[in-house]
Amino acid sequence: MTTKKQLYVLQDILGTNQKVASEIRAACIERGVLVLNLMSSPGAGKTTLLEKLAERFRDAHRMAVIEGDIETERDAERIRAKGVPAWQITTGGACHLEARMIARVLPEVSPDIDFLFIENVGNLVCPASYDLGERLRVVLLSSPEGDDKPKKYPKAFLTAQVLVITKSDLLPHLPFDVERVKKEALELNPALRIFVISALTGEGLDDLAAFLLESSRELRSAHA
Amino acid sequence: MTTKKQLYVLQDILGTNQKVASEIRAACIERGVLVLNLMSSPGAGKTTLLEKLAERFRDAHRMAVIEGDIETERDAERIRAKGVPAWQITTGGACHLEARMIARVLPEVSPDIDFLFIENVGNLVCPASYDLGERLRVVLLSSPEGDDKPKKYPKAFLTAQVLVITKSDLLPHLPFDVERVKKEALELNPALRIFVISALTGEGLDDLAAFLLESSRELRSAHA
Repeated sequence: MTTKKQLYVLQDILGTNQKVASEIRAACIERGVLVLNLMSSPGAGKTTLLEKLAERFRDAHRMAVIEGDIETERDAERIRAKGVPAWQITTGGACHLEARMIARVLPEVSPDIDFLFIENVGNLVCPASYDLGERLRVVLLSSPEGDDKPKKYPKAFLTAQVLVITKSDLLPHLPFDVERVKKEALELNPALRIFVISALTGEGLDDLAAFLLESSRELRSAHA
Repeated sequence: MTTKKQLYVLQDILGTNQKVASEIRAACIERGVLVLNLMSSPGAGKTTLLEKLAERFRDAHRMAVIEGDIETERDAERIRAKGVPAWQITTGGACHLEARMIARVLPEVSPDIDFLFIENVGNLVCPASYDLGERLRVVLLSSPEGDDKPKKYPKAFLTAQVLVITKSDLLPHLPFDVERVKKEALELNPALRIFVISALTGEGLDDLAAFLLESSRELRSAHA
């Protein structure tokens, strides 16, 4: 049973988080930086997608990455190996990133970038409750996880603007119905933009990269 | 920043949980019921493994299942279709099961069973902090999630007695090093029993089923 005291504490945490997130959002929009919050189960391919985008955007578009993990610097090291500045936040057990963690790192991030990607802790549940000040929330679902996930884990799909179905190269080996996922996700959230990609074969990456560049241009022209 | 008030509330929750879990454990050991707590990321194959065990144990060994999900009755329906009694706990947003949720269902479960499987919410992080009164904690890691997960999500691997690596049929299509996972998992937890299985091909299911039956016999003979 959740006690009243517990509920008040939870409201405190979420209220404070929302305030900090709004400040981050305002500051980044002002600078023309498109902030994206990537969330998914562990191993759905968030870091691999960022590696692929780093290769594509190299020279032409500037990006930075904030990595959230419970332990280890592994993901930030993978991003830095692509020549992209990356900050690792290790939460030491906590199951999600909070806006105050981003606010602490933000002064170190150059304002002179186009994209700031925040890779959340691998968890399809808890991160969905915490606004990080992103303009676009991106939920990734890997095909091996199964096509029944949107309705079983609705909050991430309800609150995202973008759904990326990953590892499409494995589809021939899996009982995964792409149309079922699209249908269930759109029933939850009719405005969701959906991309189907494979980091291995490159399928869908052109469309996704084009969408990100268009979103960046929109942000800059609206706040020029 | 976590305030003192927040810390006290968290200690309250975990303290109460531990007390209820201990009562569940004592009652189930007394009855000779082996309780297993299955935890993993979404889509690692917990329900599918339970379906396969239901087929194997049919007639010879009695099992029941408590399903934890955020939304939907889908998993309990899959288990009931195998002729196994199943209770669905929908947490309505909460990211893990707690012992009090199990305690509420337990009076409805026949004491005349060999195995009580509890399928936790698909989440490799939060469930690891909540004892449900299980005798065996089983963490599943599906091969598509990647071979770097034990050290990135250590708590589940540290607190489990059993690691089941699933979807071994996909290994030919994946950059997944089984030996690396075994090595990292055993560095965290040298007592871990590790099984590699495929629900599709049946690989490893004989060994896992034999281990479960042996664990059940041990429990009954120690508490006869």
